[in-house]
Amino acid sequence: MNTGTHPILQTTKNNGVVTLRLNRPGQFNALSEAMLQALLEQLELLHQDDSLRCVVIESTGRAFCAGHDLKEMRSQPSLTYYRYLFAKCGKVMQGIQSLPVPVIAKVQGIATAAGCQLVAACDLAICTDSAKFAVSGINVGLFCSTPAVALSRNISSKRAFEMLVTARFIDAAKARDWGLVNDAVPEAQLDERVDALLTDILSKSPTAIRYGKQMFYKQKQMALADAYDYAADVMARNMMEEDAMEGIDAFLEKRVAIWKD
Amino acid sequence: MNTGTHPILQTTKNNGVVTLRLNRPGQFNALSEAMLQALLEQLELLHQDDSLRCVVIESTGRAFCAGHDLKEMRSQPSLTYYRYLFAKCGKVMQGIQSLPVPVIAKVQGIATAAGCQLVAACDLAICTDSAKFAVSGINVGLFCSTPAVALSRNISSKRAFEMLVTARFIDAAKARDWGLVNDAVPEAQLDERVDALLTDILSKSPTAIRYGKQMFYKQKQMALADAYDYAADVMARNMMEEDAMEGIDAFLEKRVAIWKD
Amino acid sequence: MNTGTHPILQTTKNNGVVTLRLNRPGQFNALSEAMLQALLEQLELLHQDDSLRCVVIESTGRAFCAGHDLKEMRSQPSLTYYRYLFAKCGKVMQGIQSLPVPVIAKVQGIATAAGCQLVAACDLAICTDSAKFAVSGINVGLFCSTPAVALSRNISSKRAFEMLVTARFIDAAKARDWGLVNDAVPEAQLDERVDALLTDILSKSPTAIRYGKQMFYKQKQMALADAYDYAADVMARNMMEEDAMEGIDAFLEKRVAIWKD
Repeated sequence: MNTGTHPILQTTKNNGVVTLRLNRPGQFNALSEAMLQALLEQLELLHQDDSLRCVVIESTGRAFCAGHDLKEMRSQPSLTYYRYLFAKCGKVMQGIQSLPVPVIAKVQGIATAAGCQLVAACDLAICTDSAKFAVSGINVGLFCSTPAVALSRNISSKRAFEMLVTARFIDAAKARDWGLVNDAVPEAQLDERVDALLTDILSKSPTAIRYGKQMFYKQKQMALADAYDYAADVMARNMMEEDAMEGIDAFLEKRVAIWKD
Repeated sequence: MNTGTHPILQTTKNNGVVTLRLNRPGQFNALSEAMLQALLEQLELLHQDDSLRCVVIESTGRAFCAGHDLKEMRSQPSLTYYRYLFAKCGKVMQGIQSLPVPVIAKVQGIATAAGCQLVAACDLAICTDSAKFAVSGINVGLFCSTPAVALSRNISSKRAFEMLVTARFIDAAKARDWGLVNDAVPEAQLDERVDALLTDILSKSPTAIRYGKQMFYKQKQMALADAYDYAADVMARNMMEEDAMEGIDAFLEKRVAIWKD
Repeated sequence: MNTGTHPILQTTKNNGVVTLRLNRPGQFNALSEAMLQALLEQLELLHQDDSLRCVVIESTGRAFCAGHDLKEMRSQPSLTYYRYLFAKCGKVMQGIQSLPVPVIAKVQGIATAAGCQLVAACDLAICTDSAKFAVSGINVGLFCSTPAVALSRNISSKRAFEMLVTARFIDAAKARDWGLVNDAVPEAQLDERVDALLTDILSKSPTAIRYGKQMFYKQKQMALADAYDYAADVMARNMMEEDAMEGIDAFLEKRVAIWKD
């Protein structure tokens, strides 16, 4: 079932999995204002979709995403506009995290500047072993400040700082070793690897996943005692759900659980 | 000297080192309410033991710990009970961190769900190279929310998230590479490796260790300037202790220091 | 051009790069009160130097830095003095981070206790492959509390804790794998490797780098939404600078950008 009509962002839904496909290959899928707006609108729709199970963000062409559309940005030289634009970008990135289901970046080619941020902002990321990552704004005199927010919450401090001030690419192996992506596989296995991850996620209780994703990021920002109090309360409420009772019954009875949704 | 009498938690003390041995091998050392209570009571006693130098948490049998006791949990389906239970579990985990001496997890076999949390909550962890780790609650419809608190303070975000939504096991090598454990060794060397760590710790000033452990976790939660102010004050007070004066004298005189305790 | 006169801290400036060279090789470049004072004064001067592009901290002799001067510390046994001394040390470390340009630690030999903290406090670090790192205060009864502040913001929790309670050295390969340093190279290539990093940094817009460094550490301490708001504002203001406009023009016109400064 194809529910998307926007030409620069192709949206398909299959078995609860929505794929958002950046589709400006000629511009290396740059995050133009229109692209950010399309993403934002889709994310808002997805927030209301109770049948949603997982989201995949992928791209058409040889690049995953080359960041902001520099030509467009350059044509509107006003502080007001730039504040608006970067705030919109921030809303997209936070919208990914606040979605109640896992979001997977499926990455080939280069992911640079806000494109690298997009990978960092997703919950999970799988890339081809020829993928490359950089936060390269510094090359055009524009420090990748908003990408730094996501990047520094994924990889360690000195590594993030080096990427930001040098604009150097790291390869897929380094991205995996540093924790920016979960796995890097040969290009021919990218679909299969992401599908395996989807199969895993789809086999779980939708209710439990929704409890977990919200909790995960919220508790990370809390002091330890607050985080434990909060997580214990979430887990107690999760335990009262039908799916947890069924899941435990199935486990004890050595059968496959049947989830509510 | 054996000071423990509780059958499900064997407590021994030797040379200032208390070993807490989970002893429900038939139930994979599940953290039943009774086990959590026994751990909590022991931790409370240990908080008052001035001769305590280090704690080792280990297990009987082929598994380290398989998390909560699902059968017991299932039999008491009330929000009040689950809140009570997960709060108790959180108290155990925080009790480990608030103990003034290092706590080492000595891990063989599987450590799953709250069992993986127990490893993450310890200050240090050594495992066999066949040990495996998972946060597998999601398989029974119960997202590992409280384990996520400890796990996400040990390993990077995307790795923790993947473990939580897929329930997949990671092997000992990955656990070491990701920082969930300090080392992984062949099973035949587990005792020796933990003993070497204990020997190291026991050779240090007990006073200095006590200053350090409390400080370590407290400063991590502070903003940088506050953390430096706090740590500088702790270090100045530590420096006024007999052991620091003796330690520096011994160093300058090229002799072995003799600690107060 | 040599602008430094202080014998224990040699300061040179070349092409916008200031090198601070710890020069007490006979004392393993220990951070005596005089050395800390010299560093603090230089950092205060550098804060006002608009032509500053980068700072390198390096050392004379076989050791990078062995931490505080224990003999000097021991000779002034007063809580007031120790508070003063550790506060001064904390000011040096925070002064490195609050400088508006990147600071690179160039490390050979051992970096121990506050010497290891100095490496951790720099934005970037390159070491020789025979360099070694430890937080060894615990060996003299003095837990490395202020070093723990910097160390625990560079490497993962269990690794930092193990280093702090055992005082064991980690080698250069481990320091790189854990993220304490950016790279480890053969001694004969240390100059070349640091120069390559400097060349990279010097080729960027000075204005953009200054926007970025301040932002980087500030946003890390914020909750996610605040971090995005702040970073978006910084990036919008950066975008209004001549250098960003020039940088993007140069990129679109496929020519080399010419920065303002």
